[in-house]
Amino acid sequence: MREIFDAELTLLGEDLVAMSRRVERAITDAGTALLTADLALAESVIADDLGIDAMERDLDERCVLLLAQQQPVATDLRIVVSALRMSSTLERMGDLARHVAQVARGRYPARAVPDALAPTFAQLHDAAVRVAQRTTTLLVSRDIALAGSVEADDDLLDRLHEDTFAALLGGAWAGTPQETVDVTLLGRYYERFGDHAVSVARRITYLVTGTTHPTDDLATPA
Amino acid sequence: MREIFDAELTLLGEDLVAMSRRVERAITDAGTALLTADLALAESVIADDLGIDAMERDLDERCVLLLAQQQPVATDLRIVVSALRMSSTLERMGDLARHVAQVARGRYPARAVPDALAPTFAQLHDAAVRVAQRTTTLLVSRDIALAGSVEADDDLLDRLHEDTFAALLGGAWAGTPQETVDVTLLGRYYERFGDHAVSVARRITYLVTGTTHPTDDLATPA
Repeated sequence: MREIFDAELTLLGEDLVAMSRRVERAITDAGTALLTADLALAESVIADDLGIDAMERDLDERCVLLLAQQQPVATDLRIVVSALRMSSTLERMGDLARHVAQVARGRYPARAVPDALAPTFAQLHDAAVRVAQRTTTLLVSRDIALAGSVEADDDLLDRLHEDTFAALLGGAWAGTPQETVDVTLLGRYYERFGDHAVSVARRITYLVTGTTHPTDDLATPA
Repeated sequence: MREIFDAELTLLGEDLVAMSRRVERAITDAGTALLTADLALAESVIADDLGIDAMERDLDERCVLLLAQQQPVATDLRIVVSALRMSSTLERMGDLARHVAQVARGRYPARAVPDALAPTFAQLHDAAVRVAQRTTTLLVSRDIALAGSVEADDDLLDRLHEDTFAALLGGAWAGTPQETVDVTLLGRYYERFGDHAVSVARRITYLVTGTTHPTDDLATPA
């Protein structure tokens, strides 16, 4: 029994890593599609999100099966329940990457990001890609020192998100309503992406240390 | 053992209902605060969201304890896992109500919603309040006929959300960038609120019928 269970837990961990890699790819490609107005790349992110959704469903079903068949307690139970929650968070991160890709697709052949804000969105992209990569590494290594760097990049995403508002509302903004809408939504997608990564990082920290209370959802200023 | 477990499950159901009532109150007050520029009401929604968050944490801890102590299988297990997920969804709905209230507070003493869009936001408010009320009723009665009306109101929220974009992008829009940003975000908050209610409705349908696959997250156009 115990060997089977350990094998199942290992598999669960590997599947979370695979899901996180796919999210990493999605946010990387979505941001590239956004910054370079690459329609084919945007389409591929949108199509691939169905695969991420399927991975979540599969992982969830296996978690519930594990709960039923193995009746885990203590740490084992905590691992399975955390896996359930992390898969749902990773699925949302995939959705947000898809939303970015949908904005890129919707403005093609134009670039959705106005020139004046291109540097800010390049930074948002870089920070989001880093956050996604570190989330994967954290899932692989359980090195909770990395959790701090996820939080730092999330802070950076928040600041860059504030920068987009400052640009829109500073008085010098001369963009079209479409550009204002796009910048508003894109900024929010990136900001939420960071929040979700922090949620995964905190869950892993909690699994490793058992001490920190995981905050499921982080306050985001409207 | 069984009696204790049944009592625990009943309590879990009652707590979800209490949470849903609190979300209902939050979205009702947030929308009223938004439409009437009522600062005190907006502040109360923002403050009360901490209580909703605390309810989620409490409910989650008890679910995990139940899994550990009672080792439920089959339908019982499905109920506990669904409760875990529904509490997280309700918590998100509370966050979205808070976001609406934060926009209302941020523009006070002005009203955040421009006059031209006041009728659309009054309809968004009505539909969101209905969705929240029916979610509570559905949790109480398990009458899955209500799930259909939650989906219908969610469709209405989606259409009204599209209307806000049409107003912003139709060429006749003369609002300030701040108004454009506010309308964009508020529309999205309402649209997401409906999505989450549908997610709860589907989970209850799944619990009652055991047949429908619950879709955790619904595709939302960017």
